Amino acid sequence: MNEEIFEEKGKEKIPPKWHAYYKGKVEILPKCPIRGLEDFSVWYTPGVAEVCNEIANSPDRVYDYTNKWNTIAIVTDGSRTLGLGNIGAMAALPVMEGKALLFKYLGAVDAFPLVISEQHPEKIIEIVKAVSPSFGGINLEDISTPKCFYILERLQNELDIPVWHDDQQGTATATLAALINALKIVGKNIEDVKIAIVGVGAANVATIRLLKAAGANPEKMFVVDSKGLLHPERVDLEKKKDINPHKWRICLETNGERRKGGMEEAIKGTDVLIAASKPGPDVIKKEWIAQMNEDAIVFALANPTPEIWPWEAKDAGARIVGTGRCDFPNQINNSLVFPGVFRGALTVRASRITDDMCLAAAHALADFAEKNGLGEDYIIPKMTEKEVFPEVATAVGVKAVELGLAKVNMREEEIYEVAELMISATQRKIKKLYELGFIREPPC
Amino acid sequence: MNEEIFEEKGKEKIPPKWHAYYKGKVEILPKCPIRGLEDFSVWYTPGVAEVCNEIANSPDRVYDYTNKWNTIAIVTDGSRTLGLGNIGAMAALPVMEGKALLFKYLGAVDAFPLVISEQHPEKIIEIVKAVSPSFGGINLEDISTPKCFYILERLQNELDIPVWHDDQQGTATATLAALINALKIVGKNIEDVKIAIVGVGAANVATIRLLKAAGANPEKMFVVDSKGLLHPERVDLEKKKDINPHKWRICLETNGERRKGGMEEAIKGTDVLIAASKPGPDVIKKEWIAQMNEDAIVFALANPTPEIWPWEAKDAGARIVGTGRCDFPNQINNSLVFPGVFRGALTVRASRITDDMCLAAAHALADFAEKNGLGEDYIIPKMTEKEVFPEVATAVGVKAVELGLAKVNMREEEIYEVAELMISATQRKIKKLYELGFIREPPC
Repeated sequence: MNEEIFEEKGKEKIPPKWHAYYKGKVEILPKCPIRGLEDFSVWYTPGVAEVCNEIANSPDRVYDYTNKWNTIAIVTDGSRTLGLGNIGAMAALPVMEGKALLFKYLGAVDAFPLVISEQHPEKIIEIVKAVSPSFGGINLEDISTPKCFYILERLQNELDIPVWHDDQQGTATATLAALINALKIVGKNIEDVKIAIVGVGAANVATIRLLKAAGANPEKMFVVDSKGLLHPERVDLEKKKDINPHKWRICLETNGERRKGGMEEAIKGTDVLIAASKPGPDVIKKEWIAQMNEDAIVFALANPTPEIWPWEAKDAGARIVGTGRCDFPNQINNSLVFPGVFRGALTVRASRITDDMCLAAAHALADFAEKNGLGEDYIIPKMTEKEVFPEVATAVGVKAVELGLAKVNMREEEIYEVAELMISATQRKIKKLYELGFIREPPC
Repeated sequence: MNEEIFEEKGKEKIPPKWHAYYKGKVEILPKCPIRGLEDFSVWYTPGVAEVCNEIANSPDRVYDYTNKWNTIAIVTDGSRTLGLGNIGAMAALPVMEGKALLFKYLGAVDAFPLVISEQHPEKIIEIVKAVSPSFGGINLEDISTPKCFYILERLQNELDIPVWHDDQQGTATATLAALINALKIVGKNIEDVKIAIVGVGAANVATIRLLKAAGANPEKMFVVDSKGLLHPERVDLEKKKDINPHKWRICLETNGERRKGGMEEAIKGTDVLIAASKPGPDVIKKEWIAQMNEDAIVFALANPTPEIWPWEAKDAGARIVGTGRCDFPNQINNSLVFPGVFRGALTVRASRITDDMCLAAAHALADFAEKNGLGEDYIIPKMTEKEVFPEVATAVGVKAVELGLAKVNMREEEIYEVAELMISATQRKIKKLYELGFIREPPC
């Protein structure tokens, strides 16, 4: 395997300079005309009063009269930001601003970065609920485990707007999409394959759940954390089952063979390896890959460096390798997922985003790539294939309507048309702001 | 007095249609270039991590690397929205969106409408504190008395960013500005005049404090609420002094003559009347105005209808009349104040907005009008005189620097230049978005 095609790009250290130059990545601009001050008498007092009264009488009208319908909060407490750990709210703000860019550019979603200086789960829940009237959806981000599971479930159950934790559902959906297509290439069924899962953080807990929903057999999953394989005799995890019930359930449901040991034992004789653990390389050894079944599928998703370099995995016999990196083939990237998911959910006014909607998004991604011709180096759409975003939106919207979770009953073609139009119009607007100099050229 | 010059304009009921057409008034757009997906590797992972680390090590860098420096929250619990009462968070959202437009257009401030479904003061304080890392300032809006006083003070003391309650400080600053110039015209000194104050809500409590700070003698103020004149024998208010200490302090400090009675007794023999009570007309009677001193100044600030029609006040002998209405002369409007105040405070990174800074803003407004030539119908700048906004910003910024409350030490000319440039650039951008059709024409 030639290492060169995997070579790292763009190593110059320019980012801090750019960030300081722009002093922030998003701004708030009018989307209604201000032709002169007299227009304020419509948008503000006295004109606005009538609209307020209508909403007071019929709360649903807030979706007609305000931008709630298209606005989400990107919420974090900064307790697990990127790979940087618990750096707190303020230091997480640049990431949330960056995410807001992605939401707008790829999904035409107005996303506001809301970082919270409270880290207690009950406080976070209370705060998000209190500010929720401003928003049509909530994207949780970079919140540490296990509280992220609890916070997500509570908010999903207690709010009537979609709540999503991207580190869970976004990553799981992208992973499932890639796996669906990888299995097509190697000619195996999801029901039959043995799957090694390395790391039991937010991403893999959701991936395990989604894999089950897609037909995978939990007894054929071999899940390993930093202390070894999960199984019902993991007393350390049983003791923590109140704090992290999801992990304990994985102990009970998976590992039908009752394997014991560590990563090597988990990986041996499996068809699929999904690692979302800690930055590599050499977290996963070539020798372990060599002991996988024929036509092995390896997803090494740690950032910035995968648990094993793709060329090493291929050398050891893996047939298909995916990572989180844009400079390697098969980037398994939640940015393929969340813009479309929210575009779809907001467009039909879904009250929540269920696992079925995640499955629909995964299949939309998989189908998109399949139509373009699958290959060992092309199992999932690339970020540059921008037609994929309205496809994901449509799949999610259609599923929400089907499940009776949508307040706006739209047909498939309508959802696609709205999503496509909104996203392309947004990209044209951003391009124009740059061409006209309202967004300045980057510094040299 | 000719009624025609006061005639109401624009009576067609178009607002709800427009509001439904645009489905919200503000959106979130990039202010940094997205020339292609590769730019996301600067703005998001991996590039953003370095910037996060820098902020984690030096929290102040958040002002260099994010839009915190120019972003404020417009926070309300909807407990006293416009004149509509306690209509709750969601129904207040259109007002906050409208206010966000004003902040951007007139002050180049990125203001996000954050409506809160909690109404308990301690909860509101807790929530605002928790979300404060995202913001460079907080504008409280339409929160009922007396809790608004307590919430403002607590947040001012516990946060290191400016916190402002526009219904208090904004209205008080505009009122003071108008009074300064009105007194020049009639040739009276603020120290000497007797002032009748009708209504003891958020606006007038702050106005009384600011009048004192400007030199007015509280013993010469006669303050009246719905139950009558305030004085130390108001047992009803003494009983509530823990809940509303500000109102009780007014009982103790004002009304040196120990007048008793109602509005008529409060107004009699005064030089100035400041009413901010309930919508008129006929809340204040012509006969009462007739009993004021010569060259009486009457500010009837209730919206949408002043406590007395201006022509009636003039008929009764008032020499100078101001209202809150844009279709009458002498509009005393907090929109003249808050955009510039925040522009100035954010530009120099003031840690708070003090009464001294409000006084500076009032004097900047008064000076601006004086330079243009005062008259009985021109005591305060008009909203259309857009050069006034950077002037207010500069006065506030200079005062913050002088008081040692500014983290960025700028000279007067620098503050003016930044404020003027930011505001004019924002207005150009908004105009261009409209001309290019990115903001659509209003519906017919």
